Amino acid sequence: MVMVCEKYGVCRTTMRTALQQLTMEGYVYRKRGSGTFVSANKVKQILTSTVEHFSRQIAMQGKKPSIKVLQLDVIPADEFLKEQLMIQEGEPVNMLERIRYVDDIPIQFETAYLPWCKTPALDKQGCEKSFYNILKTQSDLKINKTIETLEMYIADKDAAEKLNICIGEPCFVLDTIAYLGDGAIIEYSKTIYRGDLAHFVIERNY
Amino acid sequence: MVMVCEKYGVCRTTMRTALQQLTMEGYVYRKRGSGTFVSANKVKQILTSTVEHFSRQIAMQGKKPSIKVLQLDVIPADEFLKEQLMIQEGEPVNMLERIRYVDDIPIQFETAYLPWCKTPALDKQGCEKSFYNILKTQSDLKINKTIETLEMYIADKDAAEKLNICIGEPCFVLDTIAYLGDGAIIEYSKTIYRGDLAHFVIERNY
Repeated sequence: MVMVCEKYGVCRTTMRTALQQLTMEGYVYRKRGSGTFVSANKVKQILTSTVEHFSRQIAMQGKKPSIKVLQLDVIPADEFLKEQLMIQEGEPVNMLERIRYVDDIPIQFETAYLPWCKTPALDKQGCEKSFYNILKTQSDLKINKTIETLEMYIADKDAAEKLNICIGEPCFVLDTIAYLGDGAIIEYSKTIYRGDLAHFVIERNY
Repeated sequence: MVMVCEKYGVCRTTMRTALQQLTMEGYVYRKRGSGTFVSANKVKQILTSTVEHFSRQIAMQGKKPSIKVLQLDVIPADEFLKEQLMIQEGEPVNMLERIRYVDDIPIQFETAYLPWCKTPALDKQGCEKSFYNILKTQSDLKINKTIETLEMYIADKDAAEKLNICIGEPCFVLDTIAYLGDGAIIEYSKTIYRGDLAHFVIERNY
């Protein structure tokens, strides 16, 4: 830091504040006893599951976000989906499979389930952007609360193919339940993140 | 679920609500197409770094929490700690190494750094409980905000020994910066979690 300050004539406090901001935003990282490094690889992700946030966050890091829809189908709810979405068995459900890319590298493989009766207007093209936006504009549905659980996930064949990694590589799996204002569940999703590229930030105020 | 309802004469809605609660609390988990299972292994952790919360959370899951202090030393701040804690290089810092256990299994290895001038009263015995509590009662210091970052961590020799796992096993690493009401940083800590046993829950309201 001293060298940079002298070289560019910047005061130390300014430089320290700037470095802290850059660290928080994932551009650089600090290593004990070794100084500050530029993060080339990791993709910072504020923990939140909306696509809108995803794209904005990635763009803010100067990277190019993109989403590919693999599948959008209506399926009948099985026992598991019935419990996750709190609907009847057999009720129609939108199943949406997507891959999210950063600079054309696949980093997230997501499978989302939404009760069809609340989301009949979902379409493939719209899901390449934010479907929360579609829900809001087309159906006036607004997410009120999410509960996310994060665990380790060892890549199986499917995840490995989707994320272009080897079977057995450690990944994160994030399960999300999203609630509307009236307490109804609007989405259950399961997202697998490449372990080597993910970097989650959780900010809390007490 | 049908079988359990019939066997115990409980209505389905009650059972479903109970199962959802148990799932959220980490006692059971649901698998698509296969029903509900009891979680034997995973330790649920609401993402927050206070020890008080840790013990309460674990106890609520019917498990026995405990903390072992490996080391509590005063060291001079190096370049890295200077930046993390926003103090001068060479200022004294409390370095605290602890292992947290659940049912006598080591699940977290934590190294915390606290500016000594704000935390002169820390002692080994107190750190086996909640040092946030000590800070609050002895010095009237209250955490106002935390910023946590979570990433994958491949166990090195030290982490493997502390957590009783093999070198190379995937773990989580959680970095926490804790702020007081006046914006001063009271703690920087790095916690390594056993990947196979950790289960984070993040709840958000919008």
